[in-house]
Amino acid sequence: MLSEFDLIKRYFQRDRAPGANTVLGVGDDCALLAPTPGKLLAVSSDMLVEDRHFFAGADPLLLGHKCLAVNLSDLAAMGAAPLGFTLALALPAADPDWLDGFSRGLFALADAHGCELVGGDTTKGPLNVCITIFGELAPGRALRRDAARAGDDVWISGTLGDARLWLAARRSEVALDAADHAATAQRMHAPTPRVALGRLLADGGLAHAALDISDGLVGDLQHILASSRVGAVLDVDALPTGPALARQPRALRRRFAAAGGDDYELCFTAPADKRAAILAAGEASGTAVTRVGTITAEAGLRLVDGDGAGLDLQLAGWDHFSPG
Amino acid sequence: MLSEFDLIKRYFQRDRAPGANTVLGVGDDCALLAPTPGKLLAVSSDMLVEDRHFFAGADPLLLGHKCLAVNLSDLAAMGAAPLGFTLALALPAADPDWLDGFSRGLFALADAHGCELVGGDTTKGPLNVCITIFGELAPGRALRRDAARAGDDVWISGTLGDARLWLAARRSEVALDAADHAATAQRMHAPTPRVALGRLLADGGLAHAALDISDGLVGDLQHILASSRVGAVLDVDALPTGPALARQPRALRRRFAAAGGDDYELCFTAPADKRAAILAAGEASGTAVTRVGTITAEAGLRLVDGDGAGLDLQLAGWDHFSPG
Repeated sequence: MLSEFDLIKRYFQRDRAPGANTVLGVGDDCALLAPTPGKLLAVSSDMLVEDRHFFAGADPLLLGHKCLAVNLSDLAAMGAAPLGFTLALALPAADPDWLDGFSRGLFALADAHGCELVGGDTTKGPLNVCITIFGELAPGRALRRDAARAGDDVWISGTLGDARLWLAARRSEVALDAADHAATAQRMHAPTPRVALGRLLADGGLAHAALDISDGLVGDLQHILASSRVGAVLDVDALPTGPALARQPRALRRRFAAAGGDDYELCFTAPADKRAAILAAGEASGTAVTRVGTITAEAGLRLVDGDGAGLDLQLAGWDHFSPG
Repeated sequence: MLSEFDLIKRYFQRDRAPGANTVLGVGDDCALLAPTPGKLLAVSSDMLVEDRHFFAGADPLLLGHKCLAVNLSDLAAMGAAPLGFTLALALPAADPDWLDGFSRGLFALADAHGCELVGGDTTKGPLNVCITIFGELAPGRALRRDAARAGDDVWISGTLGDARLWLAARRSEVALDAADHAATAQRMHAPTPRVALGRLLADGGLAHAALDISDGLVGDLQHILASSRVGAVLDVDALPTGPALARQPRALRRRFAAAGGDDYELCFTAPADKRAAILAAGEASGTAVTRVGTITAEAGLRLVDGDGAGLDLQLAGWDHFSPG
């Protein structure tokens, strides 16, 4: 059986020079980073637990990707450039196949974003992956939840609801053909963090508020509304969906797009005079961006259909401590 | 039952202004910190798992203290000044009594060190506490594991072996009277991170290498020896012990002090011409410091008794993935 030290050395200590901002990486009591002078440090932690955030027996390669992706998505939602991350890992056993897959999935995404593993911890225990990520951005540029203003457009990156559709198929609530199953599985297990778009929105001063949608748009948007003390009107029929969800009945399409969860897309607000610049930022970052509503001075979130008529979808956000 | 948002708000979101280096604390996608210009950022993560690092039913107040203490101890071993931390918490249920105790233990120690909770995550799952801590120090001042030099003294802060003695009593391997039981329980459950001493050693350029002893001195010292490509002679009878362990038979005293684990004391190396300054740093920080050996050019760790005769104690460091 692998020892803790061999495990770290074999799977997580990389045989190459540390990155530009890393003075000392894995292997000491602390990692040492040299922050870029004048920049703010953005920090976020996410903990993923088996049977809660992923299924027992999940493909370790996809899991390695997803654990880092959800953290990169938090940096994207702030508009920060990735710098590095720590990984704390509780494992029931040191399984070489699992570790090989997990570390390959993790490092493929890390390398794509120039985000270095600088330290962490491994221990025996029920499977648990905790990543803390660091990024940088210029003071005053952060896309904060409390910065939405009445009159702002509400925008969404990419498409919504595919991860929820995959879950419905797994639960035999809907039937998908093989191609739609594969496409939605990809969206559930390998979300694409919108880092490049978030940076363009922040650096260019294009957006006011932003967050990443992890628990469903309607629930997550409420955080922006509450922090910013504003309301919104959301056109549920304008929510962007992928081809698989577009083929589903309208009621299900609306519900999964508005409150599906596990989307890891950005929801952001921006003044109307930035529309052209935002479309250009979407082009430049290879990310679809869609206008789906308006921020209002009046509190509350009003859902409307394509004709502007009110909708009552009976949606609930995801709560980790609610029953079920 | 408490929702995730209520839980964070009630127990972990504090009703006061953020600290000097915190631009944005708990409640957004990321926390924003303003690093002190010219300083390096020290980062460390520790994950504590029930039945591995603490017993099921552990007092939540002490657990809150210990989870942060082991992270502060990593900063101390680097010589860094605490800045802030993130907390990721998996809980089987949102138990108000547990959360109240845990958060009080955590914040009492955090406040004593001016170390602010800036963000984190909560989820349902087997009990798991993952803290990532941030500190700062001047470039070139870090107490790195690879910096020991032949001829250095080896020093220990505080006393060793008490946590291991408490464990032996719990396992009915030794009998302790009530006072010794209480004293060793305190050392096991509420270790004192040596932050002030570590900072004095680093800022004053007094020590070369350092680490904090979590898995037993003999095992942990090997990391300094390997990284620095040196050896050491360790006088096992010079290892500092508290009164409870001093009352035990010599063989057990030697074994628990040399390889007990859970000590969270500093082991550091320093040139002989710094002895007076190191004793003064110990005084100034209210921390006992004891010379216990010498770094050698020749590789390997040699254990000797008070008369300098070789000892073979058959010790093993703690490995999280070894059987048992």
